[in-house]
Amino acid sequence: MNLTLPAITAFLDQGGSPVDVAEEALSRLAAWADPAMLITAVPAEAVLARAAALMEEGRRGRRLWGVPFVVKDNIAAAGLPMTAACPDFEHVPQEDAPAVARLLAAGAILLGKANLDQFATGLNGTRSPYGTPRNAFRPDLVPGGSSSGSASAVAAGICAFSLGTDTAGSGRVPAMAQQIVGLKPTLGLVPTRGVVPACRSLDCVSIFAHSAAEAAAVLAVIAGPDAADPYSRTAPPGWSAAPAPRAGWRIAVPLDEELVFDTEANAVLFEAMVARAKTLGATVEPVSIAPLIEVAKKLYDGAWVAERTAALRERVRDQPETLHPVTRTILEGGFGRSAVDAFDDFHAVALARLVARDIFAEADAILLPTAPGIPSLEAMAAAPIAANSRLGTYTNFVNLLDMAGLAVPAGVGPDGLPFGVTLLGPAFSDGALAALGTALSAHESLLFCIGAHMSGLPLNGQVTALGGRLVGAAATAPCYRLFDLGSRPGLLRDPGGAAIEGEIWALPTSAIGALLVQVPSPLGFGRVEMADGAAVLGFLAEAAGVAGAPEITALGGWRRLLASRIG
Amino acid sequence: MNLTLPAITAFLDQGGSPVDVAEEALSRLAAWADPAMLITAVPAEAVLARAAALMEEGRRGRRLWGVPFVVKDNIAAAGLPMTAACPDFEHVPQEDAPAVARLLAAGAILLGKANLDQFATGLNGTRSPYGTPRNAFRPDLVPGGSSSGSASAVAAGICAFSLGTDTAGSGRVPAMAQQIVGLKPTLGLVPTRGVVPACRSLDCVSIFAHSAAEAAAVLAVIAGPDAADPYSRTAPPGWSAAPAPRAGWRIAVPLDEELVFDTEANAVLFEAMVARAKTLGATVEPVSIAPLIEVAKKLYDGAWVAERTAALRERVRDQPETLHPVTRTILEGGFGRSAVDAFDDFHAVALARLVARDIFAEADAILLPTAPGIPSLEAMAAAPIAANSRLGTYTNFVNLLDMAGLAVPAGVGPDGLPFGVTLLGPAFSDGALAALGTALSAHESLLFCIGAHMSGLPLNGQVTALGGRLVGAAATAPCYRLFDLGSRPGLLRDPGGAAIEGEIWALPTSAIGALLVQVPSPLGFGRVEMADGAAVLGFLAEAAGVAGAPEITALGGWRRLLASRIG
Repeated sequence: MNLTLPAITAFLDQGGSPVDVAEEALSRLAAWADPAMLITAVPAEAVLARAAALMEEGRRGRRLWGVPFVVKDNIAAAGLPMTAACPDFEHVPQEDAPAVARLLAAGAILLGKANLDQFATGLNGTRSPYGTPRNAFRPDLVPGGSSSGSASAVAAGICAFSLGTDTAGSGRVPAMAQQIVGLKPTLGLVPTRGVVPACRSLDCVSIFAHSAAEAAAVLAVIAGPDAADPYSRTAPPGWSAAPAPRAGWRIAVPLDEELVFDTEANAVLFEAMVARAKTLGATVEPVSIAPLIEVAKKLYDGAWVAERTAALRERVRDQPETLHPVTRTILEGGFGRSAVDAFDDFHAVALARLVARDIFAEADAILLPTAPGIPSLEAMAAAPIAANSRLGTYTNFVNLLDMAGLAVPAGVGPDGLPFGVTLLGPAFSDGALAALGTALSAHESLLFCIGAHMSGLPLNGQVTALGGRLVGAAATAPCYRLFDLGSRPGLLRDPGGAAIEGEIWALPTSAIGALLVQVPSPLGFGRVEMADGAAVLGFLAEAAGVAGAPEITALGGWRRLLASRIG
Repeated sequence: MNLTLPAITAFLDQGGSPVDVAEEALSRLAAWADPAMLITAVPAEAVLARAAALMEEGRRGRRLWGVPFVVKDNIAAAGLPMTAACPDFEHVPQEDAPAVARLLAAGAILLGKANLDQFATGLNGTRSPYGTPRNAFRPDLVPGGSSSGSASAVAAGICAFSLGTDTAGSGRVPAMAQQIVGLKPTLGLVPTRGVVPACRSLDCVSIFAHSAAEAAAVLAVIAGPDAADPYSRTAPPGWSAAPAPRAGWRIAVPLDEELVFDTEANAVLFEAMVARAKTLGATVEPVSIAPLIEVAKKLYDGAWVAERTAALRERVRDQPETLHPVTRTILEGGFGRSAVDAFDDFHAVALARLVARDIFAEADAILLPTAPGIPSLEAMAAAPIAANSRLGTYTNFVNLLDMAGLAVPAGVGPDGLPFGVTLLGPAFSDGALAALGTALSAHESLLFCIGAHMSGLPLNGQVTALGGRLVGAAATAPCYRLFDLGSRPGLLRDPGGAAIEGEIWALPTSAIGALLVQVPSPLGFGRVEMADGAAVLGFLAEAAGVAGAPEITALGGWRRLLASRIG
């Protein structure tokens, strides 16, 4: 059993028990064996007792019945120690944060409290005296932070979702680092009561999950006003967390010159995601995000550093030795800031909100990288503040400007490094972002077909049955030779060859394998150089396999051969 | 012609010319002869030319066609010097503030730019190098500030309305001081673009007028979003500035022990206004306003001082000698404030907003004094900061907590000192407050009737035609004699007399005279001592006029005489 929401729901709907789900989660947790992921694990017997009680009670309409989750250790869960990754801060809250209480009331099973960058100050996941959680996508990279352990638990398949917090990007950067989905809801939609304040007025409870739809389902459970939380907001009538599909998305993307990437591969992956948005029928308009990037500096190099310091005033002043050295340096910086300068920053942010408003008057969402790239643990250790700041390039301004954000995986470069994109919308656009994120992450790959898989020909059904759709006719670069293998053509790269015609089909990446297993020798899939320079996945033949077969390069394509046969 | 909105409208509707209105305003302005009221007067010929042009064009549906007004000199009017009461700051804006532009587009006639407490910092009206505008209600008192000149111009009858600004109470305190209406709309409803910032995030354009209805009519013209103003807000659908009457008002009043007054008379006048609310059918519940008063301190003794300093940073730092000494002292205080402390204040205000929300969940409005009292010029000079702070007792928290406010006159004590009350509601309750303010300020007086004016008797129509309503039966103290004057009784005070029965009627104070002129000799109106000790206005006879008339004291009332005649 995969521990995703749909898989768990299907298992339970077919009579499975929450105890089996809990056992699966505990066994994966044990196998993962990362002492740095959870700061406090709920004892296995308590997890199983909870699951047994849930089984006893039955579903009773509860939306997350029997679904395991973890919570970042700066969010209160009654009876469990809370540290915010500062051992000296450890205490045992008597009350659940509303977000946790709502999840438990919905039948979810808490596995533990996850590690984080101390006091949620950081975007990389290495700023914790409890160690650095292992990046479940690639262990030599930082896990992303500050919600590092929460992201790892989902990415490692241990639970269906987790709660993080996200003030500066802490719920999005780890999603990219570990190739999962990170939803940062509209400010105030999920109460932050019971959350250890970072920047209290900007703090946000966030959700990690395997898909945007799953994150939206969790948001539907935890969203809602809290009478005792001064930063809680009531959503406008008609608001829903549920993905709200629409036709004709209008998407804004940053100007080319405003984009920075750690690797060329990430730039290519971003372009691919923009191209994918277009294939969904979206219009894509470049906009300048420079005023947003500019205002982002206020978070760590302006007024809001002082808000962090205010939240921990006594500790920073009287017990600075209890803080992580990097966290201490940052927090001590808040004391020197003047209120007069702070008001200048507030007014600058108010002006930037007008820029954001104008962008969203023309666009449903901004599509931009989640981060320029994910550094290795080594690179982070070499530049603990600079490398961290770079991680926040595209995330820091989001809460300041009252936007909702959804980070989704956007592929892996040839270097094996993870990339992700974030969708940003105005306050209360959570449902719209979930729909767009779902559409964008239903990942397709392009396949260049040259023979019987083309439209109207005998094997086309294999492609359409797998969800394939015709992108259009296309031709290779003039460096291929084509052979007649009977019912199929064989394509062979040869600098002395010619351009060969065919069709480009898009189909779910997850279906490529299912098609490939139906392709007989001597054919296979590989990269084909197209007339426009692109390297598209396509049918290729082994040289040995075409030896002796009639060459039909001069015809220029399989359809011409078929036509000549009829003629 | 009175220069009120209804009077001007009636005059113009009957064919009068805006030129006549403008001439009346200019002549009153000249007669008022207060060099400290306006900092810049629009030249008379320009005012008359504007009026002539309006006459030429005709009304064309414009809502303030031909209505004269003045604007506080911290709000931009194109082509007129703007000083904010700081000579060194003087410059000539090229563009009207949106509020001014909207008034001019509605056909109003600008008379000039009014004096103010320098940079809108103050509540008393004496902090200006251009002198102190004369209090038009009582010249030995401060005019109230910071919108001193704007209030004087309306109170002196020179214009129908004026614009002020109100961050800490500057649009409400002068209304009490000069016995007019002051409307502080919901934050952001009227753009503050073109207004010299005081506390930019809390600044509000306000309106002085002779009645709540007139202020609401002006608000309807100037309210509306402004795309270039970061603090502009769009009202929710269905919002209207127009008075929205309702039945069964729920009114909250401060706990007795939380009320402070300068004079016992003001306490009595406040009680009378609460009693009046009850006669309107309102339920009145005491609530603690201590948390609101507490948070008010943040305005001048907390973070927001720094916002004022930020707005004038260079001037305070480099040219402090260009500032009024008191203003300078206040603004210099902002530099010492830390951003860390400021965030503590922000969170305290956020918490206090929850208190306000809870109050407004149970009440439509809070009714409270506008100020404890209005000090004399002499008292203010003796304690320029302390006396000013006291003026803000009930006003300072209002913008911090995002409330709308409406200050209305609430009578004059036996000491001749003006009193006023303020109605506070949540954001966007402007129309509700205008309705409640209209109802509360439609002032009634009680009249003790003993003869043919009682219900069912021949002259009762005179009372009801003037808007009278029966309060109930009542009797005098046992010290009156009653005489039969034929169709009417004559009441004479005599310690050896008896209790005489009659009815108490309430009618508009403004209608008392119209009733009195219909009352023939030897009858008149005077104070009658009632059985419960109250001294109520009532019918009395001259002793000479009853000489020789039959005494009917023993019957105990006029109705008994009528009954005995029938019998």
